[in-house]
Amino acid sequence: MDLHGIGVGRGIAVGPIVRMPDPLPEPADVARTADAGVEFSAVSEALAAVAVELQSRGEKAGGAAKDVLEAAALMAQDPSLVDDIQSRIDAGKTGERAVFEAFGAFQDILTGMGGLMAERAADLADVSRRIIAHLRGVPAPGVPSSDRPFVLVAHDLAPADTALLDLGKVLGLVTRDGGPTSHTAILARAKSIPAIVGVAGALDLADGTEVIVDAGAGLVRVAPSEADLERARATIAERAAVVAAPITPGELADGTAIPLLANLGSPKDAAAAIALGAEGVGLFRTEFLFLDAKTAPSVDVQRVHYAQLLAQFPGRKVVVRALDAGADKPLSFLNDAHEENPALGLRGLRALRASEPILRDQLTALALAAAETDAELWVMAPMVSDSEETEYFVSLGRELGLTTVGVMAEVPSLAVLADQVLGVADFVSIGTNDLTQYTLAADRMLGSVAQFQDPWHPAVLRLVKLLGDAGAAAGKSVGVCGEAAADPQLAVVLVGLGVTSLSMTPAALADVRAELRTVTLAEASERASRALAARTATEARAVASA
Amino acid sequence: MDLHGIGVGRGIAVGPIVRMPDPLPEPADVARTADAGVEFSAVSEALAAVAVELQSRGEKAGGAAKDVLEAAALMAQDPSLVDDIQSRIDAGKTGERAVFEAFGAFQDILTGMGGLMAERAADLADVSRRIIAHLRGVPAPGVPSSDRPFVLVAHDLAPADTALLDLGKVLGLVTRDGGPTSHTAILARAKSIPAIVGVAGALDLADGTEVIVDAGAGLVRVAPSEADLERARATIAERAAVVAAPITPGELADGTAIPLLANLGSPKDAAAAIALGAEGVGLFRTEFLFLDAKTAPSVDVQRVHYAQLLAQFPGRKVVVRALDAGADKPLSFLNDAHEENPALGLRGLRALRASEPILRDQLTALALAAAETDAELWVMAPMVSDSEETEYFVSLGRELGLTTVGVMAEVPSLAVLADQVLGVADFVSIGTNDLTQYTLAADRMLGSVAQFQDPWHPAVLRLVKLLGDAGAAAGKSVGVCGEAAADPQLAVVLVGLGVTSLSMTPAALADVRAELRTVTLAEASERASRALAARTATEARAVASA
Repeated sequence: MDLHGIGVGRGIAVGPIVRMPDPLPEPADVARTADAGVEFSAVSEALAAVAVELQSRGEKAGGAAKDVLEAAALMAQDPSLVDDIQSRIDAGKTGERAVFEAFGAFQDILTGMGGLMAERAADLADVSRRIIAHLRGVPAPGVPSSDRPFVLVAHDLAPADTALLDLGKVLGLVTRDGGPTSHTAILARAKSIPAIVGVAGALDLADGTEVIVDAGAGLVRVAPSEADLERARATIAERAAVVAAPITPGELADGTAIPLLANLGSPKDAAAAIALGAEGVGLFRTEFLFLDAKTAPSVDVQRVHYAQLLAQFPGRKVVVRALDAGADKPLSFLNDAHEENPALGLRGLRALRASEPILRDQLTALALAAAETDAELWVMAPMVSDSEETEYFVSLGRELGLTTVGVMAEVPSLAVLADQVLGVADFVSIGTNDLTQYTLAADRMLGSVAQFQDPWHPAVLRLVKLLGDAGAAAGKSVGVCGEAAADPQLAVVLVGLGVTSLSMTPAALADVRAELRTVTLAEASERASRALAARTATEARAVASA
Repeated sequence: MDLHGIGVGRGIAVGPIVRMPDPLPEPADVARTADAGVEFSAVSEALAAVAVELQSRGEKAGGAAKDVLEAAALMAQDPSLVDDIQSRIDAGKTGERAVFEAFGAFQDILTGMGGLMAERAADLADVSRRIIAHLRGVPAPGVPSSDRPFVLVAHDLAPADTALLDLGKVLGLVTRDGGPTSHTAILARAKSIPAIVGVAGALDLADGTEVIVDAGAGLVRVAPSEADLERARATIAERAAVVAAPITPGELADGTAIPLLANLGSPKDAAAAIALGAEGVGLFRTEFLFLDAKTAPSVDVQRVHYAQLLAQFPGRKVVVRALDAGADKPLSFLNDAHEENPALGLRGLRALRASEPILRDQLTALALAAAETDAELWVMAPMVSDSEETEYFVSLGRELGLTTVGVMAEVPSLAVLADQVLGVADFVSIGTNDLTQYTLAADRMLGSVAQFQDPWHPAVLRLVKLLGDAGAAAGKSVGVCGEAAADPQLAVVLVGLGVTSLSMTPAALADVRAELRTVTLAEASERASRALAARTATEARAVASA
């Protein structure tokens, strides 16, 4: 039997399935029969036990998972939550129900605050479920653990789930929900785990069933034959050879150069990217430097940080994105506390322009860092809508000493006005995740509209072509730094639409490099034409690969 | 002195300014010095006084304002709020601060719920301010009242403000914030009040200053000369003549017919629209029938409602939009409880397709109503992304007995794929408010991104042209039913881009009718070309009118 979905990458995995356990049902709102004191002491005991468990798992996990788990352990003993649970028990609720309601009320408040606080709300839900499971004496829901490697099957994976996942054991990922820009897909690309998302019927598979996960074909083969397994193992060996192949610059079969660059969030990640063959940096995110700060860091702090990055790329191109705050990453000193639709709010360049001193400091620090090193620094603004905004950013950049200044194409209007924008900007870099989100008006984080979050959608491809054509006419670079660049088949189509460089999570470089070498520019353009004429993302993917 | 902004409509008003009072500062979080009992009884007295005041203002106002005010009066005496205030006072807060915090916490919870509940949060803020004003013995903030007619100057107007506004006294509106799709602009169009939004410096004008508000020119003339006033009065008289002019069908100077249709929300509003010369209905919203219901109304209830509308337009075109739930208008039986960015969520056709029985019932009821009457019924789906969704809706409509089935163009992808969509749909109607919101990625309700919410933006105009061209190639109707159609200058440009009919709030019909008669189709196309080449909305507006 075969199940179909959207493959992430080209990897193949073979192994037994482990199902993510189903969530616990909501505790019934029935009258408490036990004594309030007894009920509350059971809850107290559960709270303490869960806190200890989370704490010790955090110590074992280390790294980012440690912080997530320790924060969760603290939540389990928050005094105002404990008080709230006690008053609900006193008012006649059962312990389970009191925990459920008290955490629920607190979650609503966090959710109402939006942004980072709202993300914490999901962690709170996880803690609440663990406490209720403890009270019931059933295993805690969440990420399963197994002694031998497995293929994880789930509804979808949330960031909180994957922080706790022992990735060394995960051979492949299969999810029923989620699209190519979902958290599952991003994780799979970053960690080179073969994954298929949006697989109807995935949850009907029984634990322990042997499957082949063929991401390139978007196929889960259930209970494969020996011949299937042999073919799969041969392909796995071939792919290992691709990854181990000598690293060469990105180019097509006809020798057309397509520089392959890395998306990075910290100077620390540069060495690993270079080892995987990154020819430079196509997207350096600067948010981490600003996060958790009460005010923006000084010019000097920023200069040092940027110079650490640039020093690792002498003679190479490094594209730095100006601070992209707002939407799901608000900063207290830059963004409004509450927006009804933060993705459509004061974010990116809009927020920077409203707080120009912060932007001036950042661009000044970048120019100083560039002067100290031999890297070729390009700087771009996020969330730019038109040529007026482009002109504002380019002028300011030049005034502050930058030589190559461009913009990201994420807002549909920027693509529609590509001819005007490329008359002003030195280059454009396409952020396919946001461009897809806005063009299809589908929140990239929302499972119920996942079918619209596909950068293969012909509407997105048409906008990319407008940008590619305008870049060619102006003789300027048009890159892609969204998730789309990491999909080898789509990377070929993007090149066929006029994209001149591709930037991605470093783990994806080998696959994309190998795929580009199989086609000429004429063939890429031919595939692009077929995809442009398709009616849906699924159809575009099919006709481009045919 | 002149102030400039974005004019709404073509009206002119002359009168003295009344400023909307500034909001009260937040009560300081200082330790309470008065006795807790004394403090709480002062608060209790204030709560009761505000409830009585709101109740009596509601009775005086009647209509929709009555409901808003009575709900607010109830909020002022909500027992859980009263308890919360008392515990905060007991914990050492002042009465003012306790009111502020208790209402604030409750607001956060409502806001977290999203949708209609979140809208109530704004009303709650108004009640809280009134109570604090009462405690301080200062006048309540909010909409001012005046004995003689005035020009209202404000930051921006929220729905809660305008529910309480005596529109009979308001000659004109001037706001510092807000764009052409803001609540202020929509109100101004619906009520034919001359308005200018986005006026920098508006709040520096002193109460009582005489001004001319010239919406057509986007100009506030402060302390006008006698000659200015004479010209203004002459224009007011001319405009009165335009409104009183005999009603003729919409057409250009060269005789090209451009049917002028009405946007309606209820069959009750049809007679007034016909009196103002509506040649049919270009957008009938069906949400009101579903609002406040726990389940969707039956086929029979719907049939009777639709037949009431259709019976008033024998031989005329009536375009009905299928239920557009989600985003700012969620329905419990159709939409998810919480979405981080509801505007980018499961709304419109997406939600209907997920609950197809509800959609089938509505289309069946529409087909039955059409069979009972002589109107020419067209039915369209909201929030459609591509030709696959279009085909789904058109097939379903035909299966259920409808003859003319189309889609709204609100999502950018639909416009980008206009050629494919118009191969399938019988017609397209452009919702310029949402199309602008998504194309520029700027929440139409958010003041801080108001400069992007302008349907004059060349990116929006280019997408309209793609739709107009595709409609012409397919020989199909491409209408506009967003706010843009009610702007006479923009209406001409839209016609120049290939739009074949215009639907608007009935009060705007006379101005648009008069403007269309002044240009030929060739002139309209010429203005459209100039606007398409502009770099910003402001520039497009200027070059199109030049």
